Amino acid sequence: MMGPKGKLFGLGVGPGDPELITVKALKRLQAAPVVAYPAAKGKKGNALTIVESYLSPKQILLPMIYPVTTEKLPPPFSYEESLRGFYDESAALVAEHLDRGVDVAAICEGDPFFYGSFMYLHDRLALRFETEVVPGVCSMLASASVLGAPLVYRNQVLTVLSGVLSREELADRLRNTEAAAVMKLGTNFDKVRTAIADAGLSDRALYVERATMANQRVVPLAEADPDSVPYFAMIIVPGQKWVA
Amino acid sequence: MMGPKGKLFGLGVGPGDPELITVKALKRLQAAPVVAYPAAKGKKGNALTIVESYLSPKQILLPMIYPVTTEKLPPPFSYEESLRGFYDESAALVAEHLDRGVDVAAICEGDPFFYGSFMYLHDRLALRFETEVVPGVCSMLASASVLGAPLVYRNQVLTVLSGVLSREELADRLRNTEAAAVMKLGTNFDKVRTAIADAGLSDRALYVERATMANQRVVPLAEADPDSVPYFAMIIVPGQKWVA
Repeated sequence: MMGPKGKLFGLGVGPGDPELITVKALKRLQAAPVVAYPAAKGKKGNALTIVESYLSPKQILLPMIYPVTTEKLPPPFSYEESLRGFYDESAALVAEHLDRGVDVAAICEGDPFFYGSFMYLHDRLALRFETEVVPGVCSMLASASVLGAPLVYRNQVLTVLSGVLSREELADRLRNTEAAAVMKLGTNFDKVRTAIADAGLSDRALYVERATMANQRVVPLAEADPDSVPYFAMIIVPGQKWVA
Repeated sequence: MMGPKGKLFGLGVGPGDPELITVKALKRLQAAPVVAYPAAKGKKGNALTIVESYLSPKQILLPMIYPVTTEKLPPPFSYEESLRGFYDESAALVAEHLDRGVDVAAICEGDPFFYGSFMYLHDRLALRFETEVVPGVCSMLASASVLGAPLVYRNQVLTVLSGVLSREELADRLRNTEAAAVMKLGTNFDKVRTAIADAGLSDRALYVERATMANQRVVPLAEADPDSVPYFAMIIVPGQKWVA
């Protein structure tokens, strides 16, 4: 006879500083018999690194190992297809526990629904299993706090952009907003910095690497070295101060 | 002889559920001898309501009482000017404690730098006093979690809008983005819903009132009653699912 199914939790664990997890996510994390986390092969991954001090040896760790992260593979390989396989397999691993009636906490850096890897598990499992998503502090707001930069005042428009977009699209969108955050820098950095100059925003743009993580680094945008910009770097264009 | 000055903390206390405060903000809050909070006259305000169960009777509560919140006052009154006076007075109240060497935690619903009232204190005090900002879970991500709606996939563009904008500007910007959040609804709701229809997004838009607060309410956008939409309501247009 089948018992009740387990419950799936999508836990935002925050941007990097372990204390930036919420009280609720920490409770759910510590109550979970199984903790699923994304990581590259042979690595711990950021999400697990953030929470590992909170875990007990009794909890089962379930790694979800993702394929190489370059988006250009030689034919006949397709990154999209290899990701589809990865998400399908991850969902199947998690579902095995849920089907046996065991709760699973899937942890996610930042917030689960803000460019988070949990979204692909959610889309595969939320209709089959009871699911609770606990929101988290996203890297954009962590970056603004570290930079001491109020992000948006009153009725200002905020645009969140991926560094993957073209120089032209980035510049157009940056010209047409009052505040912006550009994520996913890494090898896109040089193009993004040029687009910011195209939009006339070089004087207002601020740059931070790995905000709130142990190896956080703040340098002026002009001085960042394109060859060493990590994926977890961010450019913030704060809204102009509203002098109330 | 003057001793050292106090430190100013800007604490994001999250969107409403008291457990959505971060571990760090909770620590800073409980260590603060003085807790400053914004409220209308005779009310507690949302930020204090969120954290009051965490406070001890030894802590000094410092209310910052803001003026009426309608933006249209009869001449010769100006809402902007009455707000300027409010922020100046609030900063002076907080500075009195800091000057005496006493730390002050200014609490703020959601995140301090995401349309937060703390920004005006920060702009007046951060150059004079040591300041630490602890980011929080913002209402936008709380709304997405409550709605079970992944907000942005991969490289999608996200636009955050205030309901105060004109119908035309709202519709234009909604047409020109892949995902959106519209905040500050209240009396702007009917206009915003019309702009969403103008942009052809009525089928994708989701609506929630006071996400994660005790009186949270989710209703279909078409059924929301414009006469009773609160200020703390939100419309989310999630990005289209990326089928990995």
